[in-house]
Amino acid sequence: MPQTVAFTKGQGTGNDFVIIPDPDGALALSDAQVAALCDRRFGIGADGTLRVVRSAALVEGAATPDAEWFMDYRNADGSAAEMCGNGIRVFAKYLLEARLATLDDAPLLIGTRAGTKRVTRNDLGFEVDLGLFAVDDSEIVVHARGLDVPRPGVGIDVGNPHIVIALGDPAELDALDLTVQPVVTPAPPHGTNIEFVVPAAARHAQGPGLVRAGVGAIRMRVFERGVGETLSCGTGVAASALAVRHWAGAGAPDEWSVEVPGGTLGVRVVAERDGDHVLLSGPAALVYSGEVALA
Amino acid sequence: MPQTVAFTKGQGTGNDFVIIPDPDGALALSDAQVAALCDRRFGIGADGTLRVVRSAALVEGAATPDAEWFMDYRNADGSAAEMCGNGIRVFAKYLLEARLATLDDAPLLIGTRAGTKRVTRNDLGFEVDLGLFAVDDSEIVVHARGLDVPRPGVGIDVGNPHIVIALGDPAELDALDLTVQPVVTPAPPHGTNIEFVVPAAARHAQGPGLVRAGVGAIRMRVFERGVGETLSCGTGVAASALAVRHWAGAGAPDEWSVEVPGGTLGVRVVAERDGDHVLLSGPAALVYSGEVALA
Repeated sequence: MPQTVAFTKGQGTGNDFVIIPDPDGALALSDAQVAALCDRRFGIGADGTLRVVRSAALVEGAATPDAEWFMDYRNADGSAAEMCGNGIRVFAKYLLEARLATLDDAPLLIGTRAGTKRVTRNDLGFEVDLGLFAVDDSEIVVHARGLDVPRPGVGIDVGNPHIVIALGDPAELDALDLTVQPVVTPAPPHGTNIEFVVPAAARHAQGPGLVRAGVGAIRMRVFERGVGETLSCGTGVAASALAVRHWAGAGAPDEWSVEVPGGTLGVRVVAERDGDHVLLSGPAALVYSGEVALA
Repeated sequence: MPQTVAFTKGQGTGNDFVIIPDPDGALALSDAQVAALCDRRFGIGADGTLRVVRSAALVEGAATPDAEWFMDYRNADGSAAEMCGNGIRVFAKYLLEARLATLDDAPLLIGTRAGTKRVTRNDLGFEVDLGLFAVDDSEIVVHARGLDVPRPGVGIDVGNPHIVIALGDPAELDALDLTVQPVVTPAPPHGTNIEFVVPAAARHAQGPGLVRAGVGAIRMRVFERGVGETLSCGTGVAASALAVRHWAGAGAPDEWSVEVPGGTLGVRVVAERDGDHVLLSGPAALVYSGEVALA
């Protein structure tokens, strides 16, 4: 008799997750079981699983004692991952809908393998502090199918590595063929996520209030390391805004609106005691709930 | 308050469906609602929906009064479709699991827009009679990326159009690049599904009894009209076996085992009063059940 578990499916700008409540940490899912759940034809289908477990119920939770709930995020192949910028908003949405937490005056603290993260509400949905970041200005060139010549890129580290390339106009962004992995020179030792950006002001000016004074607006497409082109990549969105802010120099906005194929996200830079932090905000939705037998 | 419906997700050789019980025909889903349910990132994700409705509850059901249940199959874009060789097995599996029908001595009759279909059990799972077929021997050539020269194909009609191309060896099949649509000359007026096949005897001989005396064995990859490469295509599997049987001439087997990326299916040719019928058999699985709010 196979074990049956309850789950909820959620998504944030098209990044989708199987959320599995397991408050007491009783559920030990093998890599193969996670992969079977995430299979888009034979299983539920998702980019990863988010197990909802009390920090106190985990040995590794000892690292995040200040957060009642720990987000056990695993990739679609079953491997454990530190953090997911889109996933943590979906996780927060689930905690609130399931009445496992509240989010009013104080931020909601969520434990992750990258430490405790602070989540608040904003007009896009939820905002999460991704922490410190670093800009690498050394010479990097990227050649992508659909671009005539190699373009310069800037390296951004927001916990994971990114190369961001600015393109001249929206038509160039649309013409990019990201079915083929762009080539980065020099090749990063552990690979990299690659983002292409264009200004989006003209486009957004016609939209419903997406452009506000002091808010930069860009459009982005992403090639995720080991995956290919995706509808959205939370850390890639943050990296893209940070790169454009870096190029713009002194006087550049600290707040950005980033349009990706899966929706629109917000990025803010805020000075904290330990240095500048980058914050990511965007929508999160719970799509349906069900029961599934584990393989 | 959005309307909430119960559903079950099922698949047959990787062709997957959202099954929606609606015995009394009370549910009128718009094309946009079906498309939202089938969206793999923002919805449940599926190749199509199978609404389970009594023939008597449908105006169009008047065409299948001999079948208690009608399979209202719709494609992922919401358009109505006549039949689906993989979907009808999943539909039968659902009827049996939900105790809405039995399948012991007599075949299970299922109403479709292509008429009433007979489903029986066999060792692969379920077998369905797809009805009459036609072979078109006129000159057709197909050029596909990954093949050095254009290859001849044969036209097979099993209710929808197919072109089947025989390749020399398994390495050639594996090297095919079906991310690009193969070019058929002369171009069929309404497009066509395209199948590439190789003999699979050597491979199957090492497997668990897939090759039996008098049973032909082939391996197939398919480019579905309007979709691209898929893990399985029920009518394409039938067409592939029929093409190879046609090439083999007198004495060719009437029973075939066809391996596709999503699994293994069976094909039989049986003489009936109105001519030769082709029957397709394979597995069907229910993966999970849930509740979803309609968009």
